[in-house]
Amino acid sequence: MSVSTAAIDPSVCAPLPVLGQDVTVPLVTGGEVTYAALDYAASAPALQRVWDDVAAYAPYYGSVHRGAGYLSQLSTDLFENSRRTVAEFLGCRAEDQVVFTRSTTDSLNLLAAAIPADCQVFVYETEHHASLLPWRDAQVTYLNAPRTPGQAVESLERALADRDPYGPALVCVTGASNVTGELWPVKELAAAAHAHGARIVLDAAQLAPHHPVDIAELDVDWVAFSGHKLYAPFGSGVLAGRADWLQAAEPYLAGGGASRKVARRADGGVDVDWHTTPARHEAGSPNVIGVYSIASACKALTEAGFDSLVAREQELVSRVREGLAEVPEVQVLSLFGDDAPRVGVISFVVRGWNSSHFAAALSAEYGIGVRDGLFCAHPLLRTLLGSDPQDPGECGAPEAEPGERSLNAIRVSFGAGTPDEHIDRFLRAVTELVREGAQWKYRTEDGRCVPDRGEVARTV
Amino acid sequence: MSVSTAAIDPSVCAPLPVLGQDVTVPLVTGGEVTYAALDYAASAPALQRVWDDVAAYAPYYGSVHRGAGYLSQLSTDLFENSRRTVAEFLGCRAEDQVVFTRSTTDSLNLLAAAIPADCQVFVYETEHHASLLPWRDAQVTYLNAPRTPGQAVESLERALADRDPYGPALVCVTGASNVTGELWPVKELAAAAHAHGARIVLDAAQLAPHHPVDIAELDVDWVAFSGHKLYAPFGSGVLAGRADWLQAAEPYLAGGGASRKVARRADGGVDVDWHTTPARHEAGSPNVIGVYSIASACKALTEAGFDSLVAREQELVSRVREGLAEVPEVQVLSLFGDDAPRVGVISFVVRGWNSSHFAAALSAEYGIGVRDGLFCAHPLLRTLLGSDPQDPGECGAPEAEPGERSLNAIRVSFGAGTPDEHIDRFLRAVTELVREGAQWKYRTEDGRCVPDRGEVARTV
Repeated sequence: MSVSTAAIDPSVCAPLPVLGQDVTVPLVTGGEVTYAALDYAASAPALQRVWDDVAAYAPYYGSVHRGAGYLSQLSTDLFENSRRTVAEFLGCRAEDQVVFTRSTTDSLNLLAAAIPADCQVFVYETEHHASLLPWRDAQVTYLNAPRTPGQAVESLERALADRDPYGPALVCVTGASNVTGELWPVKELAAAAHAHGARIVLDAAQLAPHHPVDIAELDVDWVAFSGHKLYAPFGSGVLAGRADWLQAAEPYLAGGGASRKVARRADGGVDVDWHTTPARHEAGSPNVIGVYSIASACKALTEAGFDSLVAREQELVSRVREGLAEVPEVQVLSLFGDDAPRVGVISFVVRGWNSSHFAAALSAEYGIGVRDGLFCAHPLLRTLLGSDPQDPGECGAPEAEPGERSLNAIRVSFGAGTPDEHIDRFLRAVTELVREGAQWKYRTEDGRCVPDRGEVARTV
Repeated sequence: MSVSTAAIDPSVCAPLPVLGQDVTVPLVTGGEVTYAALDYAASAPALQRVWDDVAAYAPYYGSVHRGAGYLSQLSTDLFENSRRTVAEFLGCRAEDQVVFTRSTTDSLNLLAAAIPADCQVFVYETEHHASLLPWRDAQVTYLNAPRTPGQAVESLERALADRDPYGPALVCVTGASNVTGELWPVKELAAAAHAHGARIVLDAAQLAPHHPVDIAELDVDWVAFSGHKLYAPFGSGVLAGRADWLQAAEPYLAGGGASRKVARRADGGVDVDWHTTPARHEAGSPNVIGVYSIASACKALTEAGFDSLVAREQELVSRVREGLAEVPEVQVLSLFGDDAPRVGVISFVVRGWNSSHFAAALSAEYGIGVRDGLFCAHPLLRTLLGSDPQDPGECGAPEAEPGERSLNAIRVSFGAGTPDEHIDRFLRAVTELVREGAQWKYRTEDGRCVPDRGEVARTV
């Protein structure tokens, strides 16, 4: 997973147009400012191209697969062509299948429901909950947080070699951390898994929007990602990869579309003949617009020159990291250290600040949208923050006591639509807040940290 | 479930504007014609109002629930307000909860995963597969097709009274058949269920778009429906109703959003503290646009005057039925007989015609989109068509041998966006095809029945 160092073509290195780039938001300090969306790791804005494609298609929307009308047939072609586009985007092998889901979480829950009954699962405690939790009935080995990519490979090899019994196994690993943005050694982990007779699924939720993913080159068995992080926020996701386990599994949802033939039995019961994959796991009317929007995003990233987008994002990553390094109160969170390659996802804490308070001030006083919390990766955050990793933290409920050191962190994340100005504004805001404090006082209201409009903390 | 007989207010009885109403499609006979979307029962076009709302919101899209930025908070409010709008639309009781899913199929699979372990399920064989099949691990009693609403109530009462053991039970019933459009006696079935200590879920996929649904007035325990049939085709659905079983169940998907706290245990495992409903069953980033589009559709139908929409649709139903009755070769399919109240969903076969051939000719020669097949309700179709109900039929793979009597049927369906002209054209087309035959010859290609462009069947 080396990051491209190709020369940047200036003609394609402007940010890609996204919806909302001209949206202005009010500041507590007065006036308005264009919104700086720096929470791409949670959900990215739609590419303008994706929106335009959806808007052009929407009047032609029709039911897919079983309608006799012209728009049904057009929609069916569009839906199935979208499957091919996604397969190409991921470099799928001829035998791979693309199943459309609602999200990465859904994709991994589908795979979890499809693994053999005696399959052991190996997952690092550093994963976000979507990768950590879906393996309900399986025997799961949680691997401790590695401190280098090499340690990750070593600990996986050891765990796989030691597994008892030495039966079917699945490794689930993130491609890029949703907290640190750091890239995991996916190709090496895949080689280790296969050397030990295991399979591997790549959680590419945070990787696919930032970096080309080639399933064959990485030699992973499955890839999962979400449309809404890939600039296509219309409710669809993808699980792509080997068909055999999916084909052998019970249908993920039971219903029309997954069922080929249904008949009453003489004893009063019902016999069902299920479809093969991918229809087997796509019961119900599919989200045609969601699926098409993902295909549109795949095309847009490819046609814009994904390597150039990566190169530009890497420039922004460097600027953010260098800017934050100049503020001694800021501690950037990292598992693999400064030299680790990473995407545009950076988490940090600020000495003397509650993270929720800091994030609220970034929003209210600078129009910058970031995220604070534990990012649905609690064990990892506890490891990175140095607190007891067995101590649970609450996702989404900031205990905002301004001035106190928070157990939460702040995450800034960006991508193909981020203009330089958002990064500049963010770095200026961090510097000002740390040096001068917030202008307003903040309080918790309905679980949110909000400005207390009656109380000014300092005069500008 | 009586149909409104209120006087029609002409000012609100025009069809509601929908996307695609000006789309033209080519005819095999030459020229183009505006597309007549008469497959609403599969998927309805988006209301223009829904599209406009989505388009207005899209630039303000942001991650919900845990983002600190302005657009995240705006999006969170929009998402949670949508939940309230849907609750109002369904007349939810104070203790009811609205869970957002991807579709009716998904909603019923969620409920199936949440029923108590010893819960018996009672479902009519006449249901579509989404209601028939999700009850995988439960003991399911399939009730034979009733021939009157009264028979439906009687057979349910008998089956519930006879259940052994007399433990927890769930009845699943459709509000309006996706094949015949006939209304089921939901209120009476709910009373029967409750009288026998059972609960009932209303599958309102085909009812909610055509008729107000009041969960409290009907006294059902849950209601499920899909956005894409309710003029909001953006990949979301709803399960609304009692919280207790949902709260007691394992989370439907495991992942972020459903998990409140996650921590490693001393023994190396992981402890999870799950959220309460509805978050418990909505893991992963929600489909904010899909959810908002449903709320928009609920508002649009309410504000347009749902009773007036019902009254207008009933006029169209009468015209279609009267028009088809004038063609002796047409047999309209019905379970409950001519007098049964019904919504704008009508299935029929044509003597001497393969249904796929007929549907293909409606599309190719008249620009009319209907559906042919078994409508993912195989046992019901077999009952209605008089063939052996144990004989399975293939969903979506027409065996198109023009001229032969088909085992499939043709379904015409319509709703709030249907102009009179579509109905007129449809009736004219049926009459012409039956009297004069198709103008073109047809053949099967890639599983579709398509015009054979080299062969004219008759000269006009």
